Amino acid sequence: MLIIGERINSTRPRIEEAIKARNAAHILKEASAQLRAGADYIDINCAVTTGDELQDMDWIISVLQSEIPEINICIDSPNYRAIEKALTVYKGKGKIFINSITGEEPRIAKILPMAVKYKTKLIALTMDEKGMPNSAAERVEIAKKIVEHVKKGGFNTEDLYFDALIRPVATEPGQALEFLRAIPAIKGLGNVKTICGLSNVSFGLPHRGTVNAAFLSMAAAAGLDAAILDPTDRHISSAMAASAVLLNEDQYCAGYIKAFRDKRLI
Amino acid sequence: MLIIGERINSTRPRIEEAIKARNAAHILKEASAQLRAGADYIDINCAVTTGDELQDMDWIISVLQSEIPEINICIDSPNYRAIEKALTVYKGKGKIFINSITGEEPRIAKILPMAVKYKTKLIALTMDEKGMPNSAAERVEIAKKIVEHVKKGGFNTEDLYFDALIRPVATEPGQALEFLRAIPAIKGLGNVKTICGLSNVSFGLPHRGTVNAAFLSMAAAAGLDAAILDPTDRHISSAMAASAVLLNEDQYCAGYIKAFRDKRLI
Repeated sequence: MLIIGERINSTRPRIEEAIKARNAAHILKEASAQLRAGADYIDINCAVTTGDELQDMDWIISVLQSEIPEINICIDSPNYRAIEKALTVYKGKGKIFINSITGEEPRIAKILPMAVKYKTKLIALTMDEKGMPNSAAERVEIAKKIVEHVKKGGFNTEDLYFDALIRPVATEPGQALEFLRAIPAIKGLGNVKTICGLSNVSFGLPHRGTVNAAFLSMAAAAGLDAAILDPTDRHISSAMAASAVLLNEDQYCAGYIKAFRDKRLI
Repeated sequence: MLIIGERINSTRPRIEEAIKARNAAHILKEASAQLRAGADYIDINCAVTTGDELQDMDWIISVLQSEIPEINICIDSPNYRAIEKALTVYKGKGKIFINSITGEEPRIAKILPMAVKYKTKLIALTMDEKGMPNSAAERVEIAKKIVEHVKKGGFNTEDLYFDALIRPVATEPGQALEFLRAIPAIKGLGNVKTICGLSNVSFGLPHRGTVNAAFLSMAAAAGLDAAILDPTDRHISSAMAASAVLLNEDQYCAGYIKAFRDKRLI
């Protein structure tokens, strides 16, 4: 499973503070910790600050690529201008995710050409102008519509990752099951992948790591290709390592044994 | 998910010792701890002692039912005479599992009539005279054969629980996936259920609880109906509680929140 580390997000107070203070050391520390814990990409979200998102995005990417030139990044913004800024600033040798489009045509029209031009991977949320779907079948319908759009736009669907939008089980108890059912159904559309923002599932519950870990294991077994999560969290790294072993994606259990030795198992 | 507590097993040195010393308090303590942690049935396995299995079985069941008359038991023996002994000794008000038959006809012929007579539930291992199957498809073939046999014998397949035999991933890395695929395939045979002896999956790995927990979550999501496990293990109880929430089997998350308050979450 491909891992996108979620920690550089300005909704976290320490990150907002670091962005405002232009504290490069803290941003680099967060990126390095996630890479060491197994992140393949580093998500960058600076949408929620009192500052200027475009300038903040420019600064964070500049900081990261100056120290870690091979870094893979995930540009995470509701603002297509911030995404555009990030794409022009990034000069690293790594790969890029854009996070995200939805089924809404104006947003696809703005973002898809950038994804094609910069050869990025692309996350598509299975929601549209009508809002968030409830059933697995509705999620698949929206995904189908998005597949048609991106194909027309010349985007390779191999690089399209559908996020079927997990919602908190504490308030919507049937939604985790619908999400799990949606994974194989969306992958059945053809040459597309699936992704998930993990931690939302446990919102409102105590001891959230336990629920996040169980859900990650379930989603991995259902065929999830990628996840946006905090790989430094030991509940998460435990589920990552154990799932890889169980799904025969960890030859000789080497990754699991390393996680054990590095004390990343809970 | 229906839980069978596995701790009263004479392969565990403390249990063997308690059986030999006729230490009723220890046996009762093990049963009570498992019931408090959510066990629906208590497995009784005294096959591996230097003593007399039939006498030991008689003693354990007598001890349990004298203090816990409503106890549900799972009679676990390779010896049909020990199973017969247990069925005649048990006078409790609870329900009974027999563990187990296989696809081998002589064993079915001996045990099935007892299961019918005493109206027990019955565990069937998906193996036969040819040994243990490798693929999900081979497991389903054996299950199909067993279904035909037990139907002919007048047994209600609703009470038939197939154990598709999980093997250690450390030495057989593809087997967990085959097991997971076998669950829905076996349930597709009709009105039958699935069960699993959990801990075997992690044999040979360090920090086994992490692997057991991830596998239990995966199997629960695949539709597993029952499991033989140690519910007092916090890795296991965490996966049990989180899986119930995620699969919408825990109204208002009440069981999960109770597990949290009782400090049964890791």
